[in-house]
Amino acid sequence: MRIPYPALLFLGAGDDLAAKTAHGIRHWRPDWCLGQLRLPGATAELRLPDLTPAAAARLGAKSLIIGVANPGGFVPDEWLPTLVAALEAGLDIAAGLHDRLSDIPVLRSTAQRLGRALHDVRHPPASGFPVGNGCKRPGKRLLTVGTDCSVGKMFTSLALERELHRRGVHADFRATGQTGIFIAGGGVSVDAVVSDFVAGAAETLSPANEVEHWDLIEGQGSLFHPAYAGVTMGLIHGSQPDALVLCHATGRARMDDCPDYEPPSLEEALDLNLRVARRTNPNAQFVGIAINTSALDKNAAHALLADTQERLQLPCCDPVRTGVANIVDHLLR
Amino acid sequence: MRIPYPALLFLGAGDDLAAKTAHGIRHWRPDWCLGQLRLPGATAELRLPDLTPAAAARLGAKSLIIGVANPGGFVPDEWLPTLVAALEAGLDIAAGLHDRLSDIPVLRSTAQRLGRALHDVRHPPASGFPVGNGCKRPGKRLLTVGTDCSVGKMFTSLALERELHRRGVHADFRATGQTGIFIAGGGVSVDAVVSDFVAGAAETLSPANEVEHWDLIEGQGSLFHPAYAGVTMGLIHGSQPDALVLCHATGRARMDDCPDYEPPSLEEALDLNLRVARRTNPNAQFVGIAINTSALDKNAAHALLADTQERLQLPCCDPVRTGVANIVDHLLR
Repeated sequence: MRIPYPALLFLGAGDDLAAKTAHGIRHWRPDWCLGQLRLPGATAELRLPDLTPAAAARLGAKSLIIGVANPGGFVPDEWLPTLVAALEAGLDIAAGLHDRLSDIPVLRSTAQRLGRALHDVRHPPASGFPVGNGCKRPGKRLLTVGTDCSVGKMFTSLALERELHRRGVHADFRATGQTGIFIAGGGVSVDAVVSDFVAGAAETLSPANEVEHWDLIEGQGSLFHPAYAGVTMGLIHGSQPDALVLCHATGRARMDDCPDYEPPSLEEALDLNLRVARRTNPNAQFVGIAINTSALDKNAAHALLADTQERLQLPCCDPVRTGVANIVDHLLR
Repeated sequence: MRIPYPALLFLGAGDDLAAKTAHGIRHWRPDWCLGQLRLPGATAELRLPDLTPAAAARLGAKSLIIGVANPGGFVPDEWLPTLVAALEAGLDIAAGLHDRLSDIPVLRSTAQRLGRALHDVRHPPASGFPVGNGCKRPGKRLLTVGTDCSVGKMFTSLALERELHRRGVHADFRATGQTGIFIAGGGVSVDAVVSDFVAGAAETLSPANEVEHWDLIEGQGSLFHPAYAGVTMGLIHGSQPDALVLCHATGRARMDDCPDYEPPSLEEALDLNLRVARRTNPNAQFVGIAINTSALDKNAAHALLADTQERLQLPCCDPVRTGVANIVDHLLR
C-alpha cells in the first residue's frame, strides 16, 4: 500500500473527536497535509485551509484521506458527491473504515474510469498472513500496551520513534491501526485480521532486523478489555517485545464502551502484560509508563507522574506534557 | 446452517490422523453416519460400509461430509470428480476447510444446476458478529481450556454434555471448531472470525438462557500457544464461564507445531486461565482436570490421575478411560 501524499483531509460533518484520524495525521505528518474539507455542520478544525478537491489538486494534492470515523465505520451517502468530485479532480481516496471504498459501486466505477486508486488501509491483504511460529528473530522490539483503549498507545510509540531518531538510533514505528497506517505509510490493522493469524501478522509486521535496530510497535486494545483482549494477546505474543511501555489515561472510571468494567490498576496491568509477554520473550521488561494527564492541571499532573515513578520504580511521563526522553534514557541504558 | 443427515463421510486418500473430523462425527453421532468413501491409497478406517455417492443416496444419505483435513485446508483436484458425483447423486456437500467449496467453480456451478447446497461450516456468516459488550447474561456456562491445542477439549465438552443429560440437567454443547460444528449441527468456528469480533462471537454462541441451564463451550487453542492465544483469550472473555475444565495430554514435550515452546505446568495453566476468566466473570472456578492419558498404560494412567487430583485438589479424569462423572459430581454439588 502506497498512499500518495500530500493529501486533502476529509472531515465529513463531524466534530474533533470523530476526526481523530485527521488530527493524528496533522500532528505527526504536517508536511503531508495540504488542506481540510468539511461538510456543512462540521465543527472539526485542523487549522488548515479549507479546500475543494479541485483547489487541492491545483496546489499539488495527490489524495483525499477520509480522516473521520463514525460508529460502524460506514460511508454515508452524503459523502459520495464529494468523494466522486475528488476522483474527478485527480485524487486517489484512502480510508480506514470497516466499509470498503471499493465495495461502493459509484466509487469503484468512477475510480476505474479515471484510473484512480482506492486505498482501504484497514483491510488485510488478500494473500493473508501466516500462522505465528513463535521463533525468535533478530532486532529489538518495543510494544506499547494499555490499561484501556484510546489511552495514547499510538502517540507514545510515535514519540518514542522521534526521540530515538533524535539520538541517532535506528528505529521504525510499526502501525497496527488505521491512523498509524496513514502516518507510517504502511502497517497492519490487526483488529481486522482473522483471529487465527493475528500473532502471525504481528510477526510479519516487525520482521528480522539489525541486532541494534528498534521496532516501536503500536499497541491495540488492552488485555483487560472484555471485547478486544484477544487482539492484544495475539499482538503481544507475535511482537515478542524486549521492552514494554504501559499507557494509561487519568480520570477514566470505566472501560471504553464497557460501563460494567473498571480499568485495572497500573500494578495489575504491569503484572499481567509482563507475564503474557514473557511467554514468547522471556527477557521482556517494562521500561516506562506513559500517562495521558490531560484531565489534570499542571501541578497535579507533575505530582502524579512523580508519585507513580516513585511507587513503581519506572520512568513515568506524559508524552504530550513532558515528552518521552526519560523512558528513552532508561531504554538505552 | 442446517446440514442434512444422515451423511456419507469422505476420507480422501488420507490416514486416521487426517480423518480426525470424520472420527469425531463417527464417535459422537454414529446414527448420522451411513458409510465411508475412500480414495485409492487411503488408510483411514471408520468401520463403516464403503459406499459410492449413488449407493449412499439409495440408502438415504442426504449429504457428503468432507471428514479429512490437509495442511493448508484446501480441496485437491483429485477430490473433485467424487464431489461432483455426490452432487449428481442428490447429496449436499459440507466441509470445514479454509478453502470455500463455493469458491470452486465446478462445485458451485454443479450445485446451482442441481439445486444442492454447499455448506462451508468454518466460515462465519456474512452478516458478521457484534463487538463484545461484556454484559452478564443468565444461564450457566462451562468452558474447556487447554495446556495446548489438540488435548481433548471438544471430546471433554461433549462427554460433559452427555453426562449432564444422563442426570436430567438441561445442557447444550456449543461448538467452536469445524468437527464440533458437524457434531452439534451448528456453532461458530471462532478461529475464522476477525479478531475484533471474537469475544462478541463467543457471547452470541452462548446466549442468555434459563438460570439453571448449562452451556458446555468447546475451548480452542491455549493461552500458552504462541500462535493461537488470542483466539483463546477472546473465547474465554466472551464465554464468561462460571466453570472451567483444564484439558491436558501426557507425553507431549513440545507445543503443537511450535518446537521452541514447552507446554505450561498444570499449576501455571490453572492460574493464568482463572485470572483471565475472572475479568468477565469474577465467580469463575475450575471444576476439574481432564487428561488424555493414552500415552500411558492403565496402571500409570490411574496413578497419574490420583496423584494429580490429590496435588491440585480438583476432580481429575481421562474422559476416554474413566468418563467425566467425577467432574459432573463436583459441578452439581
